[in-house]
Amino acid sequence: MSVLFEPFPIRSMTLANRLVLPAMVTRLSGEDGLVNDDIRARYTRFSRGGVGLVVVEAMAVHSAKSGPLLRISSDDFVPGLGDLCQRVHDAGPSKVVPQIIHFLKISRSGWRQTVDMLSHDELDAIVDAYGAAAVRARRCGFDGVELHMAHAYTLSSFLSRLNPRKDEYGGSLANRLRLPLRVMRRVRAEVGEDFAVGVRFLGEECIRNGYTVLDAGPIAIELARAGADYISLSAGGKFEDARVIPGEPLYPYTGYSGDRCMPGAAYPDGANLAIPEAVRAALRAAGLSTPVVAVGKIGTKELGEQVVSRGQGDLVGMARALLADPDLPKKWERDQEERVVRCIYGNVCKTLDENFKRVDCTLWPKRLGQAPESDDTVPPVWAPSGAELSAEHKEGRVLLRWKAATDADGMYGYQVFRGEEIGAAGPAMLVHHASVRALSARYEDARVMPGAKYRYAVRPYDLAGNRGPMSATVQVAIPD
Amino acid sequence: MSVLFEPFPIRSMTLANRLVLPAMVTRLSGEDGLVNDDIRARYTRFSRGGVGLVVVEAMAVHSAKSGPLLRISSDDFVPGLGDLCQRVHDAGPSKVVPQIIHFLKISRSGWRQTVDMLSHDELDAIVDAYGAAAVRARRCGFDGVELHMAHAYTLSSFLSRLNPRKDEYGGSLANRLRLPLRVMRRVRAEVGEDFAVGVRFLGEECIRNGYTVLDAGPIAIELARAGADYISLSAGGKFEDARVIPGEPLYPYTGYSGDRCMPGAAYPDGANLAIPEAVRAALRAAGLSTPVVAVGKIGTKELGEQVVSRGQGDLVGMARALLADPDLPKKWERDQEERVVRCIYGNVCKTLDENFKRVDCTLWPKRLGQAPESDDTVPPVWAPSGAELSAEHKEGRVLLRWKAATDADGMYGYQVFRGEEIGAAGPAMLVHHASVRALSARYEDARVMPGAKYRYAVRPYDLAGNRGPMSATVQVAIPD
Repeated sequence: MSVLFEPFPIRSMTLANRLVLPAMVTRLSGEDGLVNDDIRARYTRFSRGGVGLVVVEAMAVHSAKSGPLLRISSDDFVPGLGDLCQRVHDAGPSKVVPQIIHFLKISRSGWRQTVDMLSHDELDAIVDAYGAAAVRARRCGFDGVELHMAHAYTLSSFLSRLNPRKDEYGGSLANRLRLPLRVMRRVRAEVGEDFAVGVRFLGEECIRNGYTVLDAGPIAIELARAGADYISLSAGGKFEDARVIPGEPLYPYTGYSGDRCMPGAAYPDGANLAIPEAVRAALRAAGLSTPVVAVGKIGTKELGEQVVSRGQGDLVGMARALLADPDLPKKWERDQEERVVRCIYGNVCKTLDENFKRVDCTLWPKRLGQAPESDDTVPPVWAPSGAELSAEHKEGRVLLRWKAATDADGMYGYQVFRGEEIGAAGPAMLVHHASVRALSARYEDARVMPGAKYRYAVRPYDLAGNRGPMSATVQVAIPD
Repeated sequence: MSVLFEPFPIRSMTLANRLVLPAMVTRLSGEDGLVNDDIRARYTRFSRGGVGLVVVEAMAVHSAKSGPLLRISSDDFVPGLGDLCQRVHDAGPSKVVPQIIHFLKISRSGWRQTVDMLSHDELDAIVDAYGAAAVRARRCGFDGVELHMAHAYTLSSFLSRLNPRKDEYGGSLANRLRLPLRVMRRVRAEVGEDFAVGVRFLGEECIRNGYTVLDAGPIAIELARAGADYISLSAGGKFEDARVIPGEPLYPYTGYSGDRCMPGAAYPDGANLAIPEAVRAALRAAGLSTPVVAVGKIGTKELGEQVVSRGQGDLVGMARALLADPDLPKKWERDQEERVVRCIYGNVCKTLDENFKRVDCTLWPKRLGQAPESDDTVPPVWAPSGAELSAEHKEGRVLLRWKAATDADGMYGYQVFRGEEIGAAGPAMLVHHASVRALSARYEDARVMPGAKYRYAVRPYDLAGNRGPMSATVQVAIPD
């Protein structure tokens, strides 16, 4: 059996497997902060897919004004969240925790509140709010709680090397850790010893003069000593390098640090794995066995297993890959990787979020509004004449066209495969190169080299992820 | 024998070892572009230290206006460069190549010329200028030539994913490569088959929407097929994220990409090694054996050997480490690592460059203006009463003070060592934590954790790098 599907205990909860859905903004909630039908549908879908741990998107511990955002800032939110917990548990094997967040004020004028503007009373209020929210999480029936100390939000801004405070909450790393540690200790004291408390923070800030794993190691050690049961590591996502658009509030995923936070198609798989590897090594060197969640463009079972076998993490976090196919855990467990609908890391989801729109996956059929579910086992078929795949080279790009496949249950999309003929080595194996939606039967490849020869093939898949037959291959030579 | 000290053939030249001094700005030249005494002193010093390959700082292939900068843009520069070659060869075992550069215009108004402003005639002129400069390099007696395609300069801006050209020199990767490949082929055609031609480009741009190793692999393959004899990989150093200071021209190492280009003390050792590892793997997968120069905070023999043994590179590039101690190669070869004056990656050299000042190493004795040379073998001594090391904790920082050591030949500095007591695991080994100049006998440690216990010791070293005895250790507990 794959190491990924070993049960994994974290204090009070035992995950069915090592797969984790990290908190991911959905923009499905309203300004009232209450759980609604869309939220219920989104999170129960993940549980039906079998992921070990669902981390529900960040919900506010305080009542500050904001756009649409879930809240856990008063008892008014307990019934809705309690119902959500119940439904997630009923839908599948997933354990579920909320990510709880405190954020500072931001305005369209370009002004934003920074940590040096907070009085000691306001710091105390932040500690109180986290403690109360964690207790509410427990009352709702969540299996644990995750403290948000990542990206551009309050506790991350304390941890930051750019924390500008001049008092005992800024300057040295110990000072920068002071408020996050107060929060962690308060939460632990409030929820007791039999409730899992995780924390998510940045392994690397990815901004000028920001911190790296050299600070993240000690941060992880101190948070673990203060009671953290798991360490989930993100990267980047900061205000400091966000794009400035006059009249719009700064959005912290629009700069380079945003690229690193959600590495897109231009990044290699596992782009950030050196980060959890280094932090985990620091924890182990300090004698701590606290599990580490690794993330960042992990989308294949092989890479997930490598994360564990190479000690790059204990748990494998996947946000976009699970958004694209919530059934990925079930399919991996049944050794059906070839039925997984693979995220193409085009980051349309990220762009939707940046534009304050509902976060869906571009691969989903538009009419559904969520990932399709189907028990169909009959794969799509090509017309009797085949796919009639053609490839045309034009100005450093190859345009592929083919004839649509059909499926009784519904077509979903196509995978594009490519191989390069490398001199004397002969034709290289076809490897997955891209995926496209069913409605288009074309693909443009802009990463081709002069003088090279490429082979292409396409393969249709239906709503259940069943793959139809590979098309005949087509060859194209790029002029020198 | 260490793998680092195997002779390493690159086409027409055989390096005495695998150590490389990458091109590093010195700001020692004048506006006339001629080699002067300071330049001669700087580069002969490296050769006396025994580095396998000296890459002389970027020199312009064209006659565009700029601040102080070496030039190879006309035959007027041949005598001076020829004399420099001769002197470097006479001083030690180093092979020597010039890095040759083309750059675009930039003004204090904030305006800068971009690649989309260049006419086809201007592109032809760039190709011509590189070809002519490479021929001049050969006539000067250099052992080869290195083409600068990195950072914020012309050919790098063509390779960039942000290249804005709409014609056949922009858009697809093949188009972005078109001018760099024309340059490489022209240079190869002009210098012939028996002259080494290297290339330096970015393995990762480290800016928003920039390219990563996914493009750098194909770029390396194409440049190697076009005639490159070695691939030297840098990272970042771009205009796009440079700090804007009104009235000053943009300087391309002042943003996050500048941090990544010269990773400072906040970065782990070997911070960028995943880059050459991935690019080298791409070259090897394409059947190419072109050697790769890895760089980025490599400062110990152990890490240098690991680069080779793990396939992260074939050659080990060190700029700041060799600036700090040009004799590092000799000392490593003689297994005298403990005599190396270790770069502390404080990046004072980078700051000097950013401020248009002569680039020296902050560790050097000020009066010398270059790295000291001494055959002294007598180490420094403490006063009879010892170092009298004391440690005081104050607001999350530990201040160390001690009594100065003395040396007949001249004191150089102190190394600070630290160990942490980790719970039941007991006291950890003392490890090198920082280095300070001889004139101060104090050090402030800002990376301490509440509740932790630390041990410190200091060790003096003289101008030859001879280490005196370790001081007695001192302990300090940080309050919780």
